Amino acid sequence: MMNELDLVIHGGLLVSDSGSQKADLGIQDGKIAAVGLNLTGKEMLDASGLMVIPGGVDPHVHLNMPTATTVTSEDWFSGTLAAAHGGTTTVLDFVEPLPGQSLHEGLQARQSEAEGQAWLDYGLHMTIADVKLIPQIKSLVEEGVSSFKIYTTYGDMQLNDYEIVAVLDAVKENHGIVMVHAENDAVVRHATQTLVNEGKLEPRWHPHSRPALAEVEAVQRMIYLARVSGTNLYLVHLSTGGAVKAAGKALRDGQNLVAETCPQYLLLNRERYQDENPEMAAGFVCSPPLRNPNDQQAIWHALRQKTVLSIGSDHCAFTIHPQKQVALGDFRTIPGGIPGIELRYPMMYHFGVRSGMLSPEQWVALCSTNPAKSFGIWPQKGSLMVEADADLVLFDPNKEFSVTADHLHEKVDYTPYEGFALKGFPVMTIIKGRKLIENGEVLMDKPTGNYLKCGTPVIPA
Amino acid sequence: MMNELDLVIHGGLLVSDSGSQKADLGIQDGKIAAVGLNLTGKEMLDASGLMVIPGGVDPHVHLNMPTATTVTSEDWFSGTLAAAHGGTTTVLDFVEPLPGQSLHEGLQARQSEAEGQAWLDYGLHMTIADVKLIPQIKSLVEEGVSSFKIYTTYGDMQLNDYEIVAVLDAVKENHGIVMVHAENDAVVRHATQTLVNEGKLEPRWHPHSRPALAEVEAVQRMIYLARVSGTNLYLVHLSTGGAVKAAGKALRDGQNLVAETCPQYLLLNRERYQDENPEMAAGFVCSPPLRNPNDQQAIWHALRQKTVLSIGSDHCAFTIHPQKQVALGDFRTIPGGIPGIELRYPMMYHFGVRSGMLSPEQWVALCSTNPAKSFGIWPQKGSLMVEADADLVLFDPNKEFSVTADHLHEKVDYTPYEGFALKGFPVMTIIKGRKLIENGEVLMDKPTGNYLKCGTPVIPA
Amino acid sequence: MMNELDLVIHGGLLVSDSGSQKADLGIQDGKIAAVGLNLTGKEMLDASGLMVIPGGVDPHVHLNMPTATTVTSEDWFSGTLAAAHGGTTTVLDFVEPLPGQSLHEGLQARQSEAEGQAWLDYGLHMTIADVKLIPQIKSLVEEGVSSFKIYTTYGDMQLNDYEIVAVLDAVKENHGIVMVHAENDAVVRHATQTLVNEGKLEPRWHPHSRPALAEVEAVQRMIYLARVSGTNLYLVHLSTGGAVKAAGKALRDGQNLVAETCPQYLLLNRERYQDENPEMAAGFVCSPPLRNPNDQQAIWHALRQKTVLSIGSDHCAFTIHPQKQVALGDFRTIPGGIPGIELRYPMMYHFGVRSGMLSPEQWVALCSTNPAKSFGIWPQKGSLMVEADADLVLFDPNKEFSVTADHLHEKVDYTPYEGFALKGFPVMTIIKGRKLIENGEVLMDKPTGNYLKCGTPVIPA
Amino acid sequence: MMNELDLVIHGGLLVSDSGSQKADLGIQDGKIAAVGLNLTGKEMLDASGLMVIPGGVDPHVHLNMPTATTVTSEDWFSGTLAAAHGGTTTVLDFVEPLPGQSLHEGLQARQSEAEGQAWLDYGLHMTIADVKLIPQIKSLVEEGVSSFKIYTTYGDMQLNDYEIVAVLDAVKENHGIVMVHAENDAVVRHATQTLVNEGKLEPRWHPHSRPALAEVEAVQRMIYLARVSGTNLYLVHLSTGGAVKAAGKALRDGQNLVAETCPQYLLLNRERYQDENPEMAAGFVCSPPLRNPNDQQAIWHALRQKTVLSIGSDHCAFTIHPQKQVALGDFRTIPGGIPGIELRYPMMYHFGVRSGMLSPEQWVALCSTNPAKSFGIWPQKGSLMVEADADLVLFDPNKEFSVTADHLHEKVDYTPYEGFALKGFPVMTIIKGRKLIENGEVLMDKPTGNYLKCGTPVIPA
Repeated sequence: MMNELDLVIHGGLLVSDSGSQKADLGIQDGKIAAVGLNLTGKEMLDASGLMVIPGGVDPHVHLNMPTATTVTSEDWFSGTLAAAHGGTTTVLDFVEPLPGQSLHEGLQARQSEAEGQAWLDYGLHMTIADVKLIPQIKSLVEEGVSSFKIYTTYGDMQLNDYEIVAVLDAVKENHGIVMVHAENDAVVRHATQTLVNEGKLEPRWHPHSRPALAEVEAVQRMIYLARVSGTNLYLVHLSTGGAVKAAGKALRDGQNLVAETCPQYLLLNRERYQDENPEMAAGFVCSPPLRNPNDQQAIWHALRQKTVLSIGSDHCAFTIHPQKQVALGDFRTIPGGIPGIELRYPMMYHFGVRSGMLSPEQWVALCSTNPAKSFGIWPQKGSLMVEADADLVLFDPNKEFSVTADHLHEKVDYTPYEGFALKGFPVMTIIKGRKLIENGEVLMDKPTGNYLKCGTPVIPA
Repeated sequence: MMNELDLVIHGGLLVSDSGSQKADLGIQDGKIAAVGLNLTGKEMLDASGLMVIPGGVDPHVHLNMPTATTVTSEDWFSGTLAAAHGGTTTVLDFVEPLPGQSLHEGLQARQSEAEGQAWLDYGLHMTIADVKLIPQIKSLVEEGVSSFKIYTTYGDMQLNDYEIVAVLDAVKENHGIVMVHAENDAVVRHATQTLVNEGKLEPRWHPHSRPALAEVEAVQRMIYLARVSGTNLYLVHLSTGGAVKAAGKALRDGQNLVAETCPQYLLLNRERYQDENPEMAAGFVCSPPLRNPNDQQAIWHALRQKTVLSIGSDHCAFTIHPQKQVALGDFRTIPGGIPGIELRYPMMYHFGVRSGMLSPEQWVALCSTNPAKSFGIWPQKGSLMVEADADLVLFDPNKEFSVTADHLHEKVDYTPYEGFALKGFPVMTIIKGRKLIENGEVLMDKPTGNYLKCGTPVIPA
Repeated sequence: MMNELDLVIHGGLLVSDSGSQKADLGIQDGKIAAVGLNLTGKEMLDASGLMVIPGGVDPHVHLNMPTATTVTSEDWFSGTLAAAHGGTTTVLDFVEPLPGQSLHEGLQARQSEAEGQAWLDYGLHMTIADVKLIPQIKSLVEEGVSSFKIYTTYGDMQLNDYEIVAVLDAVKENHGIVMVHAENDAVVRHATQTLVNEGKLEPRWHPHSRPALAEVEAVQRMIYLARVSGTNLYLVHLSTGGAVKAAGKALRDGQNLVAETCPQYLLLNRERYQDENPEMAAGFVCSPPLRNPNDQQAIWHALRQKTVLSIGSDHCAFTIHPQKQVALGDFRTIPGGIPGIELRYPMMYHFGVRSGMLSPEQWVALCSTNPAKSFGIWPQKGSLMVEADADLVLFDPNKEFSVTADHLHEKVDYTPYEGFALKGFPVMTIIKGRKLIENGEVLMDKPTGNYLKCGTPVIPA
Repeated sequence: MMNELDLVIHGGLLVSDSGSQKADLGIQDGKIAAVGLNLTGKEMLDASGLMVIPGGVDPHVHLNMPTATTVTSEDWFSGTLAAAHGGTTTVLDFVEPLPGQSLHEGLQARQSEAEGQAWLDYGLHMTIADVKLIPQIKSLVEEGVSSFKIYTTYGDMQLNDYEIVAVLDAVKENHGIVMVHAENDAVVRHATQTLVNEGKLEPRWHPHSRPALAEVEAVQRMIYLARVSGTNLYLVHLSTGGAVKAAGKALRDGQNLVAETCPQYLLLNRERYQDENPEMAAGFVCSPPLRNPNDQQAIWHALRQKTVLSIGSDHCAFTIHPQKQVALGDFRTIPGGIPGIELRYPMMYHFGVRSGMLSPEQWVALCSTNPAKSFGIWPQKGSLMVEADADLVLFDPNKEFSVTADHLHEKVDYTPYEGFALKGFPVMTIIKGRKLIENGEVLMDKPTGNYLKCGTPVIPA
């Protein structure tokens, strides 16, 4: 009834954001070509007992990211392969132009880094830390960057209200989306100074330096400012009940926004900073910090309510030895960030779906479809629709996985999730119709990922 | 790549609740067999420029329904054909057992009526007006009735709290869903008596006899009572802002409920009762009554927010001459109800999608997928998934339709939507893979609809 | 500057609902005649270091109340004297007409009981358990009864919606106030039956028989029904967070209502029912039952927010031996109620004011002024305004009181507050200008309290 | 019974924030010495048929205030006398230190201006526009300034978040209160620039330049920042529904704040800017601008709910000719502000009390007691308690007053309330026991007002 299919995955349960069905999935030329009954193809792959899902889209990773004093331990090669092991098939990282660089130059530099190193297709967000670069936004959109990230905190990155409004206006005009790391810097500085005055500099004081209110205020403000210009807004790594409540209110008022959280804000809390071993505590230092159980509960509730619609890993890996360890005496100097690129998708299955909190469809939406929509790469990515890229995962809901740093492929000497026991794990990762990983074994001999142009965002709902 | 398809619809835009895609749709043995590119089949149907959507599922119709003094003008033959003209391919009606009848007898009686008369597959809800019938619920579920309707108003139909709790418990135990017409009868009686005392009996006083608060209180109470037993709840024909607000709160609290509204509560308001011609006013008498513009706006908002997730017509047709006309002197005796089975689907397109309020996917979800899920007939109905019944509509988004009673196929002498101009209308209605109507022409020679067994409800979200 | 005063209380801090001031208070003919500086009178009473407050008004007591099987252990003589010891100078009890009695006869019977027995002025609420008595409401108002109590639970007392609306209408017409014990009886019965089916009849199961939702639903319904008729509503003994939230919403919507809670719902919780000794657990059986800590916190919050504006004791004393003890085998038969008439005012000082939750003015308002207003006896009672009755308490904020049944004057063999240590207690109770109790010693030789006519309610705010 | 009183006001209804009573009020040495029955004094003043109320306290006036290009038309002499005509007996104005001036010098300069010119006691708020002055706050508190005003808008006045936090900390430490003019300047600038780009510079565009969202965002942010430091917060001139909603939420969360509005935001709306005569429109230019009717309604609602607890006039008078008129071509240059010092108290009676929205007690609280509490001058001002200053008004609830600029004593050539007809007006204004004005006639020959030291704020509730 049509040209013969290259590959047919049969016998599985197709699970997308929008529904689940027993059906065969046919692939041709690296794309999904048919969903149907009794399809036949050159190669037949039996998925009996497995879920066939769109590969994960991780909207928030930091690979090979320099800081003032060091660089993340994870690079493009290691990071994208670790992601693939966990069923993620697309990553979105950031460009942070150096002083003097144009946005275009910054973009090119990152593309060069990733060239031949990325196992997965990757897109790039652009950080705007200098309003003089605003006029370049238009041409960047043409180059496939439609998301522009701003900060309301961090000295040299942060923008003030006037600057934020200017970025919002420009991105609106170019049909993009503004991402924001929203914490009120004055509140953070006030809290930090209080701790410094009191000589409280050990890692366990870190969460006190960035109070919940700092996030709540900045999120609320960003919501209002984005409303002024009518710009799409993507709130990264929400960690507090207050912030998701503000986001929920804005959604009910009809605002175009996407709220993201990360597995660490769902699965870990500030008790971790009390670890007797300050090195372990340092391993959890990230911004915003881990919060309290009430916040965890509020964010789970927001997932159920569809207020939070995207899950990013915010993978930002620094080794405990030596990167975190050398700064133990002063939490302000510990490189902030924790790893998570590999387990994002399966952890959300175990703790979300298996616990009954989320439906399988919601899980796929949160980890794949919605991030893809938010950044304009859907339905090419994050979908099981015909003509989508055949980036697929065969997921065994009963496969057990015991989390320990040694079992992971992330290039970092610890995992915050050490000791977790998961049920449900990928058994095969397919990219553009070709098998990349099967049962933990890498089947390709070198990376084939390409730069992915992001288009106009679609706000998920 | 598979057995040859019977029919391929190609070139159209497949629109389901979960997404839209350009793809071909293949049908075999009355069911959807494939979605793909370049499908071929025995018959090829060109849908270029058209949307291919699941046929509408109208969860709330009253055909051939007797009242104390009369019977609805619409019967199974006329009603299901009118529905099909508007793109609806499944209807759900009610059984109201007569005094002395068992639930089974009541069911059989309705099945007999419909036998050979229904152009469409139809399911049946069971009204429980007598708690002595509760023990029969279990066997009815086996006969394909999973939804049980109760009333908090209307003398001989209404149940008190104790009885409601008993029904909820039994339906919970049998994995069904309780539908409720929720208006506080004491409030209605109080308001009505006040009008009677003041001699206000013309049709224009009807809405004053059933104040918004009556609905808000009863909806809130039903939400609480259903929470006690943990029973699935379906709130029919919500008409007030207060009621949808209560439903939204309950949904956010995690309750399993479905809120339904009807096109009349979105598109018409109580100004209609002020018509100089009392016959016209009588044409709009229904319960709950048409409300004010604030309520209309609140319900539209609730649709956007996904608080209201189902659209029923509550088609309940009585002719103005003579049925409504003979009772003009006292609004209490006017047969209550208005027609709407034919235009539900296209009106929601015109006023919902074309206005930008709803996405095409939401429209399909509201008029087809969600009603099907709520009553356990999905994905057989209301879906474009493989193995679903090929109940399909080719919908031309640009076809214009001028609403007037003469253009409609409903068996009643008026339409409440007289004078509306719609853009977007079905051009073909297909049931189980066979063309029933094309461009307004009926292509089959007799009805082929069957009784449809309803299974376990799935709460849409 | 005026006729010589009978008594001047000087040197104290006058604390009323509306403010605190150092000033002298002059009394003449049993009434407050002046507030000023350097007042002189025939008798001078030094209140240095003390607070001078309006005597407490307990809006909710049950003295000499019969039940189906017994009668409360507390009578008019003992109860009013115990109240006076704790600084309460007015009590409001209930008339529950016997079958066949008119409201007037019921009132007279209670007045006869109290005649010569009441140490304090007392008013009476009228319970309406039979709608045939509604026509008598008008004449009762003339006899000084302006509050009419209804029940939504308790077999022979409870009214259905139609009856409730009829009472509301009649009370509205006569400018009174409707009090309601609001628990949904169907929910209570459902929960109770479940426990009975499971053989769970020990006292510790009592709270499970009356779930929070029963109260929330009935309170919400009463709010709506009172809104229909526009009648003043007084919600007795609210015990749940959900109920006070509903009340708060109604107040913000402008409804005329007063929410009451009791010390037991603030200071005790359902842990008490887990006492190893079932006799002790039985001592806490009351309806609504003690709730969980979240509810306690929500009600404290509602006091601070001025959503709950009245504190009643709901004093309803039954001895553990033998009254509660004989029914230990089945919680349904344990006489429900706990004592509290004596300590209401000082406990609210200790736990409310001393803890910083409430201002002294709020404390007086909650325990004296607001109850007086709610039932139309203000400013005669509950006030320090000139012409008010000189029902006064000299309260020593530093006097310590160790709570144990032996230290109390209540006629019952236990106290639910055993072991509490209070700081702040009355040192003198004055009624109509005459000393009744000084430092625990009764100075009058016989009761002088009179029946108090209640007038038009004033909704406090 | 005490030393003879200087003056007794008898026969009136004493109305304070906390209650109303028929009683006599006795004055000695300029202070209230007694409230009682049948008081006698050297002078007896008959107040039969009148209300005796605490004189108004206007917490927000601008007398003799320079701007970049001009100075307000109203000075201390004219302004305080106009205030007294309307029943206000205390005003609170601002110190805005000049560049280079210390706070102390700024204070002294304002005191010198007022010396011998002020008919009423006056207090002063201190504007902090430069964080270098923060260390001086402590000594200012000792000089009687406990309120410190900041701006989030207006170029040279405005503080950023860091500066705001620093002021909040310092004021917290010194037990004062921070006042804030809260509008997001970036939003204002964005809106203004849009108008400029479109050539929309006539007065009617003024309200578009300062959108509601600017106020809502800044109010919300100030609430959060004040929460960080735990500082008392006074929100001046709230004009939007969104802002009062945020304030109400914060109050329910237990935050110490006072929300102020002004009569203009209750009684006027943005329709005024549409006046055909641009000179008239210019007369209404103020910041924040007049809003829409929904905002008016929301603020009235907030008054009823006790969310907004203070009424200031924000009297800031500029003549239409020539001050406003010369700037007609560009709304940005029109001196912003409108007069209102004279009618604040009686207008709130007419529109608040007479309309049934507010009780007389609430009216007094809003216009007198609460402002006095907020700035630490209660109970010396704003109270009828003994030892309070005898600043009193005899208010005739039936006296009619026709508002027109000619009938007023404000030194400005128009009134925004032209044509209003009031019922209820002062017939006598008494300051510290001496008659200042009787029936519109000034009875003193020269000003006797003094600088008033403000103490620790008391948050009204």
